[in-house]
Amino acid sequence: MAKVICCELAPSVGELDRNLAAASVAVRAAAAARADVIVLPELVTSGYCFQSVDEARSTSIRAAHEVFARWSDDAAGAVVVAGFAELGDDGNLYNSAVLLDGTGARAVYRKTHLWDAEKLYFTAGDAPPPVVDTAVARIGLMICYDLEFPEMTRSVALRGADLLTVPTNWPWVDRPDGMPAPEIVIAMAAARVNKMPIACCDRRGIERGQRWNESTTIMGADGWPLATADAAGTAVADLDLRAGRDKRISGRNDLLGDRRPDLY
Amino acid sequence: MAKVICCELAPSVGELDRNLAAASVAVRAAAAARADVIVLPELVTSGYCFQSVDEARSTSIRAAHEVFARWSDDAAGAVVVAGFAELGDDGNLYNSAVLLDGTGARAVYRKTHLWDAEKLYFTAGDAPPPVVDTAVARIGLMICYDLEFPEMTRSVALRGADLLTVPTNWPWVDRPDGMPAPEIVIAMAAARVNKMPIACCDRRGIERGQRWNESTTIMGADGWPLATADAAGTAVADLDLRAGRDKRISGRNDLLGDRRPDLY
Repeated sequence: MAKVICCELAPSVGELDRNLAAASVAVRAAAAARADVIVLPELVTSGYCFQSVDEARSTSIRAAHEVFARWSDDAAGAVVVAGFAELGDDGNLYNSAVLLDGTGARAVYRKTHLWDAEKLYFTAGDAPPPVVDTAVARIGLMICYDLEFPEMTRSVALRGADLLTVPTNWPWVDRPDGMPAPEIVIAMAAARVNKMPIACCDRRGIERGQRWNESTTIMGADGWPLATADAAGTAVADLDLRAGRDKRISGRNDLLGDRRPDLY
Repeated sequence: MAKVICCELAPSVGELDRNLAAASVAVRAAAAARADVIVLPELVTSGYCFQSVDEARSTSIRAAHEVFARWSDDAAGAVVVAGFAELGDDGNLYNSAVLLDGTGARAVYRKTHLWDAEKLYFTAGDAPPPVVDTAVARIGLMICYDLEFPEMTRSVALRGADLLTVPTNWPWVDRPDGMPAPEIVIAMAAARVNKMPIACCDRRGIERGQRWNESTTIMGADGWPLATADAAGTAVADLDLRAGRDKRISGRNDLLGDRRPDLY
């Protein structure tokens, strides 16, 4: 069994050093709780509600930034997935996520589906989301609005992900009484139709008047929520990350094998 | 606004004449309630839990069967979508659905993703689900397990469906307290990520010991349930079937326009 911990932090927009330090504290706490996989929110280094391109740029960091080695040490061998505002070698800003293990950064993914005002600050990535073969399991990563494209979730499952990690910043969305956030409905469906656990790490706190869903949720391969964030923002679930490799769901059905790609 | 009515019937396995008559009664009642679109369950003509190929064959009918003209008359101008066990000209049995309007049968779809024991009785179809331009709206149809392939739901949305109709027979599935059936979670997500209303018509009654989810649900283009079946098995929702044609969901986002097909 693998222990997955999501840390629903409340980054402060524009305060890079403070955010890097807060993330470090969260990673150390999760490692102390024996996490195998630690997921932090989207743009945990920068905050989200920028007022200008200059502000976004002032909190962006390069993929080679020293903080990633620090978090890797903090994690004591666990895998860490965290969102950050990336300053590319091409000078563009990207809404990115890094996957770290004990050896350092294994992959950086640049969000390919940008949400609303993000288009004012960030350039969309041009590469598919990675699936990284770690010592824990094969871990995929996507960012927030990416999850609303089931083609992309499917592509990660087809490439063998045992767990999909999704750093998010979900602005508040109304929903009927008793219903989860719509993004969680989408994640539950994505987990179930792919028989693939999904760990969504949202953010919290009010930033420049913006509320968030605060809907951090870890779903099992059957799509049902296993854990949501506690009062401190921590969601913890123990998962058999190999169980979803067998895609059979009846004596005669296999979720991926039953696909009819010639018809879509 | 269009009135969509689902009739959650309880067909009797093997009793063709009785099932055809019961469907006729349901279609007439829905038409009397001013339905524009009437959806009946999967295999409403035959029942589901066959004990032999002979039994399945004995309740299968050809796509040219006279009952479709009768239902078309019963519907008084409304569109009818209904599942039936089809005897093909090739001698094979298909788990099919017909779409009828005032002019008769407009399309027959043969289920392409067969569930479990269906594979013992039916041949899988080889054509994509149709989207039919009716006087009411452009209406797509898929059958039950098809819905668990988000590529297929997407393909129907990309071909311009204003409403997706889904005749189903959902065998009972356990779920956590307070949660809808997992197929409804999948349908809610499919509606929302495609901004396309979906009307799922399940069946009811216990057949040879098999319980059903009895989860007939009509979802709006935002994915939230608008109606479920009442005690008599009827679900009714009034929908603006043109509203989902505009796929914008923020000032800078369009659900279909934001897709990155090169990356999936």
